[in-house]
Amino acid sequence: MIIIGEKINGAIPSVAKAIAEKDADFIRDLARSQSEAGANFIDVCASVDVSVEMETMKWLIDLVQDVTETPIAVDSPSAEICAEALKLCNRPGLVNSVSMEGKKIDLIFPVIADTKWECAALLCDDTGIPKSGKKRLEVFAAIMEKAKEYNIDPSRLHIDPLVEMLCTSEEGINIILDVIREIKKQYPTIHVTGGASNISFNLPARKFVNQAFIVLAMSAGMDSAIINPLHKHMMGLIYATEALIGMDEYCMEFIGGYRKGLFGPVK
Amino acid sequence: MIIIGEKINGAIPSVAKAIAEKDADFIRDLARSQSEAGANFIDVCASVDVSVEMETMKWLIDLVQDVTETPIAVDSPSAEICAEALKLCNRPGLVNSVSMEGKKIDLIFPVIADTKWECAALLCDDTGIPKSGKKRLEVFAAIMEKAKEYNIDPSRLHIDPLVEMLCTSEEGINIILDVIREIKKQYPTIHVTGGASNISFNLPARKFVNQAFIVLAMSAGMDSAIINPLHKHMMGLIYATEALIGMDEYCMEFIGGYRKGLFGPVK
Repeated sequence: MIIIGEKINGAIPSVAKAIAEKDADFIRDLARSQSEAGANFIDVCASVDVSVEMETMKWLIDLVQDVTETPIAVDSPSAEICAEALKLCNRPGLVNSVSMEGKKIDLIFPVIADTKWECAALLCDDTGIPKSGKKRLEVFAAIMEKAKEYNIDPSRLHIDPLVEMLCTSEEGINIILDVIREIKKQYPTIHVTGGASNISFNLPARKFVNQAFIVLAMSAGMDSAIINPLHKHMMGLIYATEALIGMDEYCMEFIGGYRKGLFGPVK
Repeated sequence: MIIIGEKINGAIPSVAKAIAEKDADFIRDLARSQSEAGANFIDVCASVDVSVEMETMKWLIDLVQDVTETPIAVDSPSAEICAEALKLCNRPGLVNSVSMEGKKIDLIFPVIADTKWECAALLCDDTGIPKSGKKRLEVFAAIMEKAKEYNIDPSRLHIDPLVEMLCTSEEGINIILDVIREIKKQYPTIHVTGGASNISFNLPARKFVNQAFIVLAMSAGMDSAIINPLHKHMMGLIYATEALIGMDEYCMEFIGGYRKGLFGPVK
């Protein structure tokens, strides 16, 4: 499982405060701790006014690179900011994200075409988030056309099928699981990613829904997730699921993760 | 999800102590608390020497029936004990269990044929636990032949595919998930059950494996489980999974379970 550590995000109040107060140690600690907890990428999202977004991104990226070699996921709603920010990174990371909305892909794909950068791509377009699985797969096909055009190998893409909140659903996540399976069937080397928390919007006891969602999505082929790697219960379930779905022969990774303290005993 | 509350079992040291000391209140509390936590059956397993098993079963069954109307799962390796014990129950429950081993089915099925008793059936026979999925399905077919012979409707059966420990597996639980899917495909009204803990034998941090296993097995069609209903994290994941797999429209049961305190907030 590819873990994209989500904790450096200005939408989180404690991070917003650290950004406002230029608390460098707070940011460095978040980078270090997520890296030690097994994150494969450290997401960096400023979530500040666009007028100061680029300088904030630079400040955050520099702090992350002070303390870890874990690659960065440059995260902004603006493709222009992503394209600028990735130049500040010492090594290839992940662009988070493009979609078929506006000119995002045509801005980002040429920039990363001849690099080792990976890229998250959301299955939405200028009409918003598709209601049906079929429409999501049409957006996916359009993204893959663009990837082909710019010579981006499927193995560099993390497709986010955009899970919607469960509380308004009559049939659970079956549509999304089918979309994930179809994507992996068409491109076995592609990654499927997603956040763990949209699914539980408006529900109580959200972490149960988030955790069960990740387990189920992994069984359908999700192999990348934007989560908090410091959440030991989620990490334990992820390692356990890898073993259960046959991705961890003899549970070697599970046992190794336990020994490293990535999850540990649970009540 | 049908919850078979597992806590009244003489194999658990505190219960063995209560049996030895005739601590009736301890047993009554276990029955009451599991019932309040949402158990659909209260499993009663003496796990004592055969010479005193029947009298112990009677003592336990009477105590459970003192405090709750939740049906009992009479649980013994001996079909004779099960057949005797079920007569002590005030209302139909679950026989736990039969298999194609020895004469178990031919002892139990005639006794429950014209009743509303349900029955757990393990997919093993006199040669032990089958290694392959194919062989498990052959044992299943033999059980269903017997069910037909004794006129036991599939909806009264809880088939336990017998999950083996993950740590010796090279491909996870894919075989078992396929067996579960096939069973439900052949008999949509049948129940598929199982314990949550065999899977994690010999592993550290077992609860992660148990929890992820239940989520995955539910997505394949498991709709009954022998678990501890007082374990709030497991119960939260079960309720969440029901909603995620489309068995709980608009999450009404999930929200109701939360309000009843069956799981509650989680860190």
